[in-house]
Amino acid sequence: MIKANDPALHSWIEIDASSDFPIQNLPFGIFSTPERDPRVGVAIGNYILDLCVLGRRDFFNLIDMDPNVFHRPCLNDFIALGRPVWRAVRNRVSELLRNDNEEISGDSDLIRECLVLQRDAEVHMPVKVGNYTDFYSSMEHARNVGSMFRDPENALLPNWKHIPIGYHGRASSIVPSGTPIYRPKGQTKAVDADAPVFGPSRMLDFELEVAFITGRETQLGQSISPNEADEYIFGLVLLNDWSARDIQTWEYVPLGPFLAKSFASSLSPWVVTLDALEPFKVKGPVQDPQPLPYLEFTGHHHYDINLEVLLQPEGAAENSICQTNYRHLYWNMNQQLAHQTSNGCNLQVGDLYASGTISGPDKGSYGSMLELTWRGTNPLQLTDGTSRGFIQDGDTVIMRAHGERNGIRIGFGEVRTQVLPAF
Amino acid sequence: MIKANDPALHSWIEIDASSDFPIQNLPFGIFSTPERDPRVGVAIGNYILDLCVLGRRDFFNLIDMDPNVFHRPCLNDFIALGRPVWRAVRNRVSELLRNDNEEISGDSDLIRECLVLQRDAEVHMPVKVGNYTDFYSSMEHARNVGSMFRDPENALLPNWKHIPIGYHGRASSIVPSGTPIYRPKGQTKAVDADAPVFGPSRMLDFELEVAFITGRETQLGQSISPNEADEYIFGLVLLNDWSARDIQTWEYVPLGPFLAKSFASSLSPWVVTLDALEPFKVKGPVQDPQPLPYLEFTGHHHYDINLEVLLQPEGAAENSICQTNYRHLYWNMNQQLAHQTSNGCNLQVGDLYASGTISGPDKGSYGSMLELTWRGTNPLQLTDGTSRGFIQDGDTVIMRAHGERNGIRIGFGEVRTQVLPAF
Repeated sequence: MIKANDPALHSWIEIDASSDFPIQNLPFGIFSTPERDPRVGVAIGNYILDLCVLGRRDFFNLIDMDPNVFHRPCLNDFIALGRPVWRAVRNRVSELLRNDNEEISGDSDLIRECLVLQRDAEVHMPVKVGNYTDFYSSMEHARNVGSMFRDPENALLPNWKHIPIGYHGRASSIVPSGTPIYRPKGQTKAVDADAPVFGPSRMLDFELEVAFITGRETQLGQSISPNEADEYIFGLVLLNDWSARDIQTWEYVPLGPFLAKSFASSLSPWVVTLDALEPFKVKGPVQDPQPLPYLEFTGHHHYDINLEVLLQPEGAAENSICQTNYRHLYWNMNQQLAHQTSNGCNLQVGDLYASGTISGPDKGSYGSMLELTWRGTNPLQLTDGTSRGFIQDGDTVIMRAHGERNGIRIGFGEVRTQVLPAF
Repeated sequence: MIKANDPALHSWIEIDASSDFPIQNLPFGIFSTPERDPRVGVAIGNYILDLCVLGRRDFFNLIDMDPNVFHRPCLNDFIALGRPVWRAVRNRVSELLRNDNEEISGDSDLIRECLVLQRDAEVHMPVKVGNYTDFYSSMEHARNVGSMFRDPENALLPNWKHIPIGYHGRASSIVPSGTPIYRPKGQTKAVDADAPVFGPSRMLDFELEVAFITGRETQLGQSISPNEADEYIFGLVLLNDWSARDIQTWEYVPLGPFLAKSFASSLSPWVVTLDALEPFKVKGPVQDPQPLPYLEFTGHHHYDINLEVLLQPEGAAENSICQTNYRHLYWNMNQQLAHQTSNGCNLQVGDLYASGTISGPDKGSYGSMLELTWRGTNPLQLTDGTSRGFIQDGDTVIMRAHGERNGIRIGFGEVRTQVLPAF
């Protein structure tokens, strides 16, 4: 059998070489059309393949599953069926889309029913997120923030190289790409002011992150090792973890970020499976000191995925303001998940675990305005002649991600969010 | 019409004067019996009234609702119907249980079907918690912890009296009373050690908290004022927010508590409605400096509710180790909820918002072992001759709460949890 990742595969659907969604990708998501409820689909080229339609027509009847899981407003029920089922469905979709298969391509009525142009569809949250953790796993980011918020001489705190530091985030305010967000209001206090004031944040920032979604639960008390983690991870999305730096500075001691983060986080809508990302596994950085045994792993669990952030002022052109790579993370996601469960905390299907801001070693690779403009002191000059210390009302922030191997590009699509004035 | 809170009300069910559940209380919860699935019930004396049975028999047909919401494994669908419906149902239950009403009391078959002894039933999580926030609103607790973990001279951080400080907690590991928990494992580092070690926590602690559950959602960007908050709050429960102090000390900078808290939180199963607690409203402490306008409120939003913690070694008697009161909180729950939404963060039905550890001004009123034993340096002497710096394997921690006015006792029942050795 031809593997779903084989670079030699081609689809009967015409797909541009620059597309994020060749037949080797096949990410899952939730979409709707004006006529039809949200349901499960797979992105392919400029199209979405409607798995709900295919399920009703028995195209998955060799797989041990109820195809009604595709007629849902989130992927959770499908994901809960487990990795063997995700794999079998992705392999079957690959087969159906191959240029030597006529099950769909030979039936023009069916093509019209099951293929929807992405531009005609609305995308939704791919999963109902029950638990959201945000890690802090980029050493360059932690160093930059530590320098600005605390002490440049001791930017990295003593625990950082021992613990994949993280905190719990707010699940309710996670929204899909395309949903505009409101500038948050909150308490801020100038260093030289006697008392705080309340009003719209003046230091609104993005955070470039990659997040993984769990597809298998654990029981309270149970821990998993980094080497077991792949069995629990369904796939990856891009995340813009919006932050209000002025609110954060005043509120974050001693219990960490709260309202500085909880007003919104924006997600890319297509979940790229671990299977599709297999060719992009690379060795991570040397971890010194050696992590404790519960964080040790074998094999490669970092991924070579290019990341880009663009800023588009209202009515003007996009400006690429950050290029970096997911491989820059110090702690990998297998270690993150092992750490999360090391105290017996239980995983659920649809949990979201974000990397923390991903910054590379040099200036153009920093994953937040805070770092790119060094807290606003060195504003970015944009192509329309304006400059930015932080994000302004009307600005759109776009994040994109893709890996490339053997001429095959596996992309994430984008997460695109416009900022509206405070409500 | 006689009000559901009227002290003159009596039920045809015999209820002991010391019961937490007189006819003036009527808290909602989820229970099951060996023969029947989890469903909605109301605690009354030693019994549970099965609303699912009553709904099927049209006892609520004058209320504009689908009685199938009572045949659910959580209260969320019922709560989502809104405050007018919660009130109408509670009033109707009050009417059915009154000693002058024969709709149930005159039908012995129906009594057998709809009244279940609490000791014959299993209680479950009352709600599916989508979002869990833990505040830090007791000044005495914040001062005690600040003294121990940071600096006794500056125990209260500069932001504390301006902000109802809080952080996001883990929703997946919240369990109902009666569910044993495992001692967590984790990284700890002794002050004089070169490197951290991994193993079972040696400073396992409880935290005595009261939590409220939201019953109405808001939209992203929307904020509510403290005076509006009552319309969004369904009711209150007791919460034991388990904590591992040694894990916390090493992990909590800079992003706050994470694995030190996420291994378990234990909840009392009966949600006491704000309506039942109306007689217990009292004036709170003077807030100085004056809070910013978005935190200002009129009326009384503190509650006079006695709180108690008991520690029971395996096979030995209960020891009362803490007596305090919910009124000791500095920030009230209306301010907490207003703060939560002040940045536009959206509320969902079934969210849980906990007070933070509630400590009173004197030693016997501290709401954690950390404070009661001053970080283990002054162990508690128990009646069985043993002593405790922190919680040991086999120990059961019990929390109880009740208010009393005009001879009527409105109680929360208890949250009871045994600690098992690390998994």
